[in-house]
Amino acid sequence: MDKNTFALRPPMGWNSYDYYDTTVDAAAVRANAAYMAEHLKDIGWEYIVIDIEWFAPGAGSRRDEHQYIPFNSLVMDAYARLLPDPARFPEGFGPLAQEIHDLGLKFGIHIMRGIPREAAHRHIRTLSGVDAAEIADPSSICRWNPDMYGVKNTEAGQAYYDSIIELYASWGVDFIKCDDICNTNMYPHAPYSGKHEIEMLAKAIDKCGRPIVLSLSPGPALIEQAWHYEKHANMWRITDDFWDDWRLLKEMFWRCELWQDHVSCGNYPDCDMLTLGKMGKGFGHERSTNLTPDEQKTMLSLWSIFGSPLMLGCEMTLLDDATLRLLRNKEIYDMEDPAMRPKQIMRDDFAAKWIRADENRYYAALFNLSEEEREMGLCETCLGKALRERGYKGKIADRYTSLWDGSTVTVTEGKVKLRVPAHGCVVLKPVL
Amino acid sequence: MDKNTFALRPPMGWNSYDYYDTTVDAAAVRANAAYMAEHLKDIGWEYIVIDIEWFAPGAGSRRDEHQYIPFNSLVMDAYARLLPDPARFPEGFGPLAQEIHDLGLKFGIHIMRGIPREAAHRHIRTLSGVDAAEIADPSSICRWNPDMYGVKNTEAGQAYYDSIIELYASWGVDFIKCDDICNTNMYPHAPYSGKHEIEMLAKAIDKCGRPIVLSLSPGPALIEQAWHYEKHANMWRITDDFWDDWRLLKEMFWRCELWQDHVSCGNYPDCDMLTLGKMGKGFGHERSTNLTPDEQKTMLSLWSIFGSPLMLGCEMTLLDDATLRLLRNKEIYDMEDPAMRPKQIMRDDFAAKWIRADENRYYAALFNLSEEEREMGLCETCLGKALRERGYKGKIADRYTSLWDGSTVTVTEGKVKLRVPAHGCVVLKPVL
Amino acid sequence: MDKNTFALRPPMGWNSYDYYDTTVDAAAVRANAAYMAEHLKDIGWEYIVIDIEWFAPGAGSRRDEHQYIPFNSLVMDAYARLLPDPARFPEGFGPLAQEIHDLGLKFGIHIMRGIPREAAHRHIRTLSGVDAAEIADPSSICRWNPDMYGVKNTEAGQAYYDSIIELYASWGVDFIKCDDICNTNMYPHAPYSGKHEIEMLAKAIDKCGRPIVLSLSPGPALIEQAWHYEKHANMWRITDDFWDDWRLLKEMFWRCELWQDHVSCGNYPDCDMLTLGKMGKGFGHERSTNLTPDEQKTMLSLWSIFGSPLMLGCEMTLLDDATLRLLRNKEIYDMEDPAMRPKQIMRDDFAAKWIRADENRYYAALFNLSEEEREMGLCETCLGKALRERGYKGKIADRYTSLWDGSTVTVTEGKVKLRVPAHGCVVLKPVL
Amino acid sequence: MDKNTFALRPPMGWNSYDYYDTTVDAAAVRANAAYMAEHLKDIGWEYIVIDIEWFAPGAGSRRDEHQYIPFNSLVMDAYARLLPDPARFPEGFGPLAQEIHDLGLKFGIHIMRGIPREAAHRHIRTLSGVDAAEIADPSSICRWNPDMYGVKNTEAGQAYYDSIIELYASWGVDFIKCDDICNTNMYPHAPYSGKHEIEMLAKAIDKCGRPIVLSLSPGPALIEQAWHYEKHANMWRITDDFWDDWRLLKEMFWRCELWQDHVSCGNYPDCDMLTLGKMGKGFGHERSTNLTPDEQKTMLSLWSIFGSPLMLGCEMTLLDDATLRLLRNKEIYDMEDPAMRPKQIMRDDFAAKWIRADENRYYAALFNLSEEEREMGLCETCLGKALRERGYKGKIADRYTSLWDGSTVTVTEGKVKLRVPAHGCVVLKPVL
Repeated sequence: MDKNTFALRPPMGWNSYDYYDTTVDAAAVRANAAYMAEHLKDIGWEYIVIDIEWFAPGAGSRRDEHQYIPFNSLVMDAYARLLPDPARFPEGFGPLAQEIHDLGLKFGIHIMRGIPREAAHRHIRTLSGVDAAEIADPSSICRWNPDMYGVKNTEAGQAYYDSIIELYASWGVDFIKCDDICNTNMYPHAPYSGKHEIEMLAKAIDKCGRPIVLSLSPGPALIEQAWHYEKHANMWRITDDFWDDWRLLKEMFWRCELWQDHVSCGNYPDCDMLTLGKMGKGFGHERSTNLTPDEQKTMLSLWSIFGSPLMLGCEMTLLDDATLRLLRNKEIYDMEDPAMRPKQIMRDDFAAKWIRADENRYYAALFNLSEEEREMGLCETCLGKALRERGYKGKIADRYTSLWDGSTVTVTEGKVKLRVPAHGCVVLKPVL
Repeated sequence: MDKNTFALRPPMGWNSYDYYDTTVDAAAVRANAAYMAEHLKDIGWEYIVIDIEWFAPGAGSRRDEHQYIPFNSLVMDAYARLLPDPARFPEGFGPLAQEIHDLGLKFGIHIMRGIPREAAHRHIRTLSGVDAAEIADPSSICRWNPDMYGVKNTEAGQAYYDSIIELYASWGVDFIKCDDICNTNMYPHAPYSGKHEIEMLAKAIDKCGRPIVLSLSPGPALIEQAWHYEKHANMWRITDDFWDDWRLLKEMFWRCELWQDHVSCGNYPDCDMLTLGKMGKGFGHERSTNLTPDEQKTMLSLWSIFGSPLMLGCEMTLLDDATLRLLRNKEIYDMEDPAMRPKQIMRDDFAAKWIRADENRYYAALFNLSEEEREMGLCETCLGKALRERGYKGKIADRYTSLWDGSTVTVTEGKVKLRVPAHGCVVLKPVL
Repeated sequence: MDKNTFALRPPMGWNSYDYYDTTVDAAAVRANAAYMAEHLKDIGWEYIVIDIEWFAPGAGSRRDEHQYIPFNSLVMDAYARLLPDPARFPEGFGPLAQEIHDLGLKFGIHIMRGIPREAAHRHIRTLSGVDAAEIADPSSICRWNPDMYGVKNTEAGQAYYDSIIELYASWGVDFIKCDDICNTNMYPHAPYSGKHEIEMLAKAIDKCGRPIVLSLSPGPALIEQAWHYEKHANMWRITDDFWDDWRLLKEMFWRCELWQDHVSCGNYPDCDMLTLGKMGKGFGHERSTNLTPDEQKTMLSLWSIFGSPLMLGCEMTLLDDATLRLLRNKEIYDMEDPAMRPKQIMRDDFAAKWIRADENRYYAALFNLSEEEREMGLCETCLGKALRERGYKGKIADRYTSLWDGSTVTVTEGKVKLRVPAHGCVVLKPVL
Repeated sequence: MDKNTFALRPPMGWNSYDYYDTTVDAAAVRANAAYMAEHLKDIGWEYIVIDIEWFAPGAGSRRDEHQYIPFNSLVMDAYARLLPDPARFPEGFGPLAQEIHDLGLKFGIHIMRGIPREAAHRHIRTLSGVDAAEIADPSSICRWNPDMYGVKNTEAGQAYYDSIIELYASWGVDFIKCDDICNTNMYPHAPYSGKHEIEMLAKAIDKCGRPIVLSLSPGPALIEQAWHYEKHANMWRITDDFWDDWRLLKEMFWRCELWQDHVSCGNYPDCDMLTLGKMGKGFGHERSTNLTPDEQKTMLSLWSIFGSPLMLGCEMTLLDDATLRLLRNKEIYDMEDPAMRPKQIMRDDFAAKWIRADENRYYAALFNLSEEEREMGLCETCLGKALRERGYKGKIADRYTSLWDGSTVTVTEGKVKLRVPAHGCVVLKPVL
């Protein structure tokens, strides 16, 4: 199989983490899936992803002490493969995946790199007949989560990864977000120590016969390993966990600058979840996003013109009308077509300008990164140069539609001139 | 001006450094230019570049102690602009450039970032009327060359750069290799401290009205600054000085992996000079290259399929027939067309495989990085995936011409299979 | 208790590791103890230390794959306290300690920082009633040994350390070498992450009522933490594992330079085991030391004039006569008296010179670090300056006894002059 | 000469920098010397030190742009030796030194490591007949001051240092503070690049026949080089520039912890100038110290019990009575006797406790590092242990004089208990 055919555009969907932390259950998944099918599916949103600790009984029950309860007994089958916690997912994931598929959506799950620590200490025999203790690497742990040991780069290790992917494929899983694998900077001695596990996962997916999108987490991914990610995965996080904080959003502009030449069909550098709407409940502090409406537009515009996957971090059923309207601006997502390639025109502490183009089409966006409303311009010369670098062969428009407010913008004396609010943006689509 | 139009393909030419060190003179330049015009111009070689210390009287005269004589009095005009040493270049560079242009070639010079230290200490008034002492940054020096101080990021600093580029443009300079500017890792406090001087140079070139190719040196360039190089320069070194040593050549494969997504029209990550033929005379040890003929083919093939500029480091008039034949293999350079984009298929300690393609065309190369001859293969599936990633839309060939020996290679059972010598390579062009 | 009274001089003894690796047993301990009592006790050798994995059944049985067998079931009591492997130590450590005490010697054991991983995964209740899973820190592991988790800095954690030290004190343990605690550079985020466990161990010893010497391992200890080691421990390794290799021995000179001001009564920076005689059997390759006789003298002289503990790494019963004679040179150990303080006079790539002195006494040593025999000198002026810095108030001798060969050395024209063999040394004691 | 005899106690004096920056002149020096002779000499204050740029005409005249004017023409003799600026020091330093000696005080000057850049560019012939251009290392500059190039480690380089020290000795200089030499962390390639210049200076002083105290600056000095400083210098800065900021003062406690074992007669790790009284005039902002009276006592007490030199940074003639009273507390300086050695008993974020002792005497100090007044205690057991480590053999007192307020403090139930103000301290001297 060619992994670049698994997702022909950056995946758009929902992920349980930002709202539920470790406490998501089947009811919540169903409610969000139903909402997506009704309100967002028609414009491209399709993935429903269950994040961390679905295999952990009592997850979240000691939230004041631990995000991840150590030495907790995880739910596994006889071969040391993690299974969903029956208290939260009584029917298991197979039927749940089926329900989601029936809604016309796709089903994704989170996994941790490795094999359960408990399986090694209990010497569970894996599907290939090898003791889990021979598969686990006792010196390879996750710095922040106590569940797993890394898997050794051996035949038995590959067989273990094959066995879990086979199981997940049999459930109908369409998307795997593997955690603790993209920038395991735990050991100074081995900063990219999850490298062989990325390869093992990719091989297991290739063997399983199901086109499962592979998403790597957390970041920041190492730019020096770009070729390796592109060889084996579909998405990789270019940032630490992103939250609803302007400083993180502003910083994402240089992350996108760094990765802009690595966006292509099947290869999506990932800016992390969209922090819109309600979030934080599972963390003990339900709240509305701290991003202003202008910042939310900036986030959606940057993710889209750059080409990041789009994953909602909120509880969708609680979306207010204004936010839903933002999310239904399909023309913004049209920029994500990987046939077009992104390019930053300029960036400094106060502003950033981007285009995205292929031979026939283009978009442009102006971002005000400063603390005050300012007039921003885009001259035809700079624009033309950037467009040519991305292969655009057409003419440069003299009128544009501004995609967030629908207004028309006219070029005057070789320049677009616009007022852009603090932290806000304008996205321009040519009227040709 | 759009700097991406200054060199529509990676520059091919000759540079005086590897053979002459600091001792090149007008006679040597003329002899090499004449040779190029006669033997290499027809297939695309065109730049003649004079490297370091052309402004230094007595350069090379104390080679046992110093490569660059400190506190030497450099030749300057009244405005602190360096001029060629009259002992070596009695007519100056204007007439020399004219001669080279008359041969149908282009003329390039090396400069050091900055303003002569001596000009600051002598308080020379620059063309804009400002004292050199106000332009020079006394804490910005080159770690390995004593000639210059960095230029401050001020209006007067820009005016100084404008003044030198104006002078060089008036001479007919087509190409400037600026040294000590691409990875000035002297100060831990400021690892990319030449950044503003790159911008000043680019601005000065833009103002001067002449399309002067800007080449940045030394490397390794910082991948985090890729966007910045692409914004302002045409070439930037991705490596420390490259010499005729297999270990450096093998290492270049990962450097090319790192930079493969940054090659486009007007933007050429630079693998440094080709170490073929005779070299080293100015360093006191004239020698033939230490690279074997197979290694030389590997070098030329990698540079070309990746898209690096090609600059000969040898004394051309001493080229033997075999080497000249290598250099006249035009089909190899055909790969350099920036309309095509390179992609590494795989790389490990023993082998590397690359393709280069656009919508309609492609090339493939197999490199044996091991110490023994080995059979190497290329399967259609892997090839197809890589070609699609680079936008190839045509069919995959079942026969190829092997570009170094002209033989025909046939696909059998979905695979090309070939014996490749140790450190050698095969470059394949489809017979379609 | 004042830990500085637990060892009034640097401990001298034997450690099982260099010869037995993880395979030492009671018979081996007894044989070495008997040998020490008979041949070395009279001149100060007294500690018998059992090194790593005495609690691990089958230790060494999979030596081709693992030095430390992961997920092995360790021998523990009901409270998660490690006990000696009954197959190798059928009577346990209490009676063995008694035998060793009866020989007039002292008994030491090695421990790993932490609590057995298995105890946490099995949720064993510790002596204080708290579940081991609440005491273990799941993200604190040893990079090279799979047995333990670090202990959290909590009351229950302290109680666990108290419980093990209480048990070991009840057995009659006189010396504890705690491993993975002195320079746990596993996590870049926490380079000195064992710090609180050092404090907990020191407190536990203080409470137990028995003067147990605390030795920290491995190194290199951090010079920035010197005060902390001195506050809590008696010995700390200033080096990675030392082996019988001249390069490591030569390097020890700068380590001693670095730590020379931190030697005092009860505080002994530790140069690691003496690599003399036979070693390596447990590692699968029994061998005689690779150090030449001159290098062995250099090692003993440096350790002694600096003030390091002296621990034999060999199988003592296999000592040849020549080595035993070296070890019986009591006058060398006389230098270790912590009332005197060491001082390096000079060191370069070819030589090093040291003194050790108090108000009334002094010693001097000349070390030839070069590859050839050379004449070395010591002038009275330099000597006098160094002696004064260490508080010596007496006169400077004009005759010396050379401690390794017993010859007399005379000062001529204000200087001692001597021929010293390559890698060898001369140790001088004044004849006053 | 034995450099350890040049200053038998940590030097106490005045330095022009904190008040005058680069603008000090003869009148200011005289006024401060006169003040010291009258008000402070009797209790040990004796050095008058002229800090940076005494050789620079117009120093301070462009303070808004430059602290150190680049490419300024420095005052030199015919042999490239810097001389005092005649505008500020019309009689030169010889007569000024004489005046100061006549007051019973000592005379010190600041120098920059190296040889004037201008001397090299002008090819001045030095006293040994060698061109300054051959002595200067063009790649060795100071990161923050433009005056000098480093001196090469050659015979001619040594001769240059000999020549300047000879000149300064002839003037009657008693103290040299050499700058840019103690922690030249400019080049990652050579973090301790001034090392050979320290040795050259020490040699030059040894040859000159005058006991000139050598003080190294700036810091932080490298603890790994402690032995080297002790071998060649009398004082070395253990900190970056210290200013009147509580955070820097609090941080000094760990710096003192780090260096406490390196204080001995002739060897004084240096905490930098005392920031009391009026300061900052030359910087353009004359101000009173930002340290509260309690913080000032803490500073004086820490410097003294640790054993740092004491250099006043203020304009002495403007001292108010309260500050003068602080400075005249002679009993505090009695702690500085290098026969006693300092020892930290404990330190955490809230408090620090120190003793200083020899066989017969001791002092103790309690520092409140927290933001609130707190009760602090000192138990006899801890005190006893620390005193024994420093060799104290006498009895432990049951009554103390508190040196800052003269009150008597009594031991109760084995403990001293005291209330100490926020950022303040108590210093205890036994009543025996």
